[in-house]
Amino acid sequence: MSTHENKVGNKGWYLVRYSPNGIPSSDHFQLRSSELSLTDLPQGHYAIQTLLLSIDPYLRSRLIGCDDGLYFPQFQLDQVVTAFGIGRVVASKDGKFSEGDIVLHHFLPVAEYSVLPGSDPIATKLEADPDISLSDVLGCLGVPGFAAWIAIEILARPKEGENVFISAAAGGVGMYAGQLAKLRGCRVVGSTGSDDKVGLLKREFGYDDAFNYKEEADYDAALSKYFPDGIDVYVDNVGGRMLEAVLNHVNPHGRIPLCGMISQYNQVWTEREGVRNLLNAVGKQVRLEGFMLGSYFDRWGEFTTQMGNYLKEGKIKSKNKTYVGIEGFLESLQSLFSSSNTGKVILQVSK
Amino acid sequence: MSTHENKVGNKGWYLVRYSPNGIPSSDHFQLRSSELSLTDLPQGHYAIQTLLLSIDPYLRSRLIGCDDGLYFPQFQLDQVVTAFGIGRVVASKDGKFSEGDIVLHHFLPVAEYSVLPGSDPIATKLEADPDISLSDVLGCLGVPGFAAWIAIEILARPKEGENVFISAAAGGVGMYAGQLAKLRGCRVVGSTGSDDKVGLLKREFGYDDAFNYKEEADYDAALSKYFPDGIDVYVDNVGGRMLEAVLNHVNPHGRIPLCGMISQYNQVWTEREGVRNLLNAVGKQVRLEGFMLGSYFDRWGEFTTQMGNYLKEGKIKSKNKTYVGIEGFLESLQSLFSSSNTGKVILQVSK
Repeated sequence: MSTHENKVGNKGWYLVRYSPNGIPSSDHFQLRSSELSLTDLPQGHYAIQTLLLSIDPYLRSRLIGCDDGLYFPQFQLDQVVTAFGIGRVVASKDGKFSEGDIVLHHFLPVAEYSVLPGSDPIATKLEADPDISLSDVLGCLGVPGFAAWIAIEILARPKEGENVFISAAAGGVGMYAGQLAKLRGCRVVGSTGSDDKVGLLKREFGYDDAFNYKEEADYDAALSKYFPDGIDVYVDNVGGRMLEAVLNHVNPHGRIPLCGMISQYNQVWTEREGVRNLLNAVGKQVRLEGFMLGSYFDRWGEFTTQMGNYLKEGKIKSKNKTYVGIEGFLESLQSLFSSSNTGKVILQVSK
Repeated sequence: MSTHENKVGNKGWYLVRYSPNGIPSSDHFQLRSSELSLTDLPQGHYAIQTLLLSIDPYLRSRLIGCDDGLYFPQFQLDQVVTAFGIGRVVASKDGKFSEGDIVLHHFLPVAEYSVLPGSDPIATKLEADPDISLSDVLGCLGVPGFAAWIAIEILARPKEGENVFISAAAGGVGMYAGQLAKLRGCRVVGSTGSDDKVGLLKREFGYDDAFNYKEEADYDAALSKYFPDGIDVYVDNVGGRMLEAVLNHVNPHGRIPLCGMISQYNQVWTEREGVRNLLNAVGKQVRLEGFMLGSYFDRWGEFTTQMGNYLKEGKIKSKNKTYVGIEGFLESLQSLFSSSNTGKVILQVSK
């Protein structure tokens, strides 16, 4: 490291106002520019250039402004927001990381560069694997892949021949959940928001069938059609009316891992449409189970081994929607709520 | 058995019309009289005089008229309805039962006398136990006791010091569930429908606290007051608005066994108030699990041993509301939905 002062221009996204409901916008975030010294690092710290960020729905829950104990804590006002991401170490005064290391960080600032403490256990060095791309590290082997794996392999464990329904099936979690269920020998049907994505699910991801929930807006009728033998497992990524419809078609001993409820994040709860038929869960002996990734980190090794093997064997395919440049963060976040994307949303900050 | 013809007058309750919603009434049932020969029995059959019947909320779900796969099958029109009950064998042409035997039957006709096939495995001879009353056989050791035991001992398994909330706490399932949770060292609070029952829960059943949900109709405020440290386990007997309120106070990794939803049975599902905050179950990693007793019969021996011991040691107390005479069936059934009872509802047909 040169002793000569080495400064870089640095842009990052700051939260300036909480967003209790609606889709977060430029009312809530500001892209701020500053200069960052890469030479004048505190001892035990390293400077990182952000490469890729994982844009996931759970981020929405950190913007409410009301710390009701749900999900992660709220982001702080006037601070840079963070996301699961990958960066390259560009300078280091820490023993753990050296210049050039590629680092996976659970809460990487949404900025071009950051100076971070090396002692933080949520950052790990990525060993280069020529068979696995960095976007797969964020997707298939990252937040959405792990969520899908917990839902299928730990909570639902569908048996061969069982009927599995996945909502938001072409989204980050959905595409992996459906493929994992297919690998267990299930019949898998997905719902998604466009005819293109219906085609993709069937062609690329091996779904047995799929439907466009915007075209088939009578969910009850759609599920009658696609699940004549009922639903054994429902991986819920949307909540609300779709969950209600599923509870009318669920088989005895059905399992419903609750991964997320994308239809519910942008409304305060008293304004949401409620689920009216939970009584069915009694008679049908259904288990609905919410989960957060952090509770299953003891299974991380098992997950990366199994998923990594599937990936290398070509048994799991991925699709990413990549936004380029730090400026694209807000658009990438908003895109999660418009059903406009296919696959995992990634922000590529630097090459 | 005499060869002389021995006929008895016999009254029984027949279903004459289904009741999709509202509280079932004399529009739906008729008490019919007939004569029954106790001598002219078919081979392999026995005649039984009904002593006690267990009047449980699940009966409501057999009266809808729409066999949607929930709960047990619908009762048949123009047939006598059935309930879990106890009778005395008054004549027998079957090797399994002899005159004078006391028989526990899962689907005993709601009639004074019945002629039944001995081959039916859902009838078992009760061995006399001087320490256990017949009403305890139906309650603590019957349908509501088993439901409470499954909820607490299999599904929720609360740890010492955890906060447990029971709704319909003075009802058949609730009173046992709360006492079982106390025996596990939990802090237990119940909701119920009268100040008298609030007192009973605290005095007789050892609840740490209790409230009258009719007086404290802002459930959210009530739960804030009674659960300053949140709710770890909720035994749901009512569903609807109370479940919604609990989801605003549930702790991470909360467990909610869904025993029944008494607030929901008398409305078609589209007219019910929905639960709007299921999203909390994701962030709080809550498990909601419906169950039916039939799925846990492999644990019946374990249950009767543990509950029987608690009962003999005086660690579990019971309260029954007994209706007397076959004529009282309809009133006893209706009473389940009016919050007018305390404890387990029993119909005593004969002494």
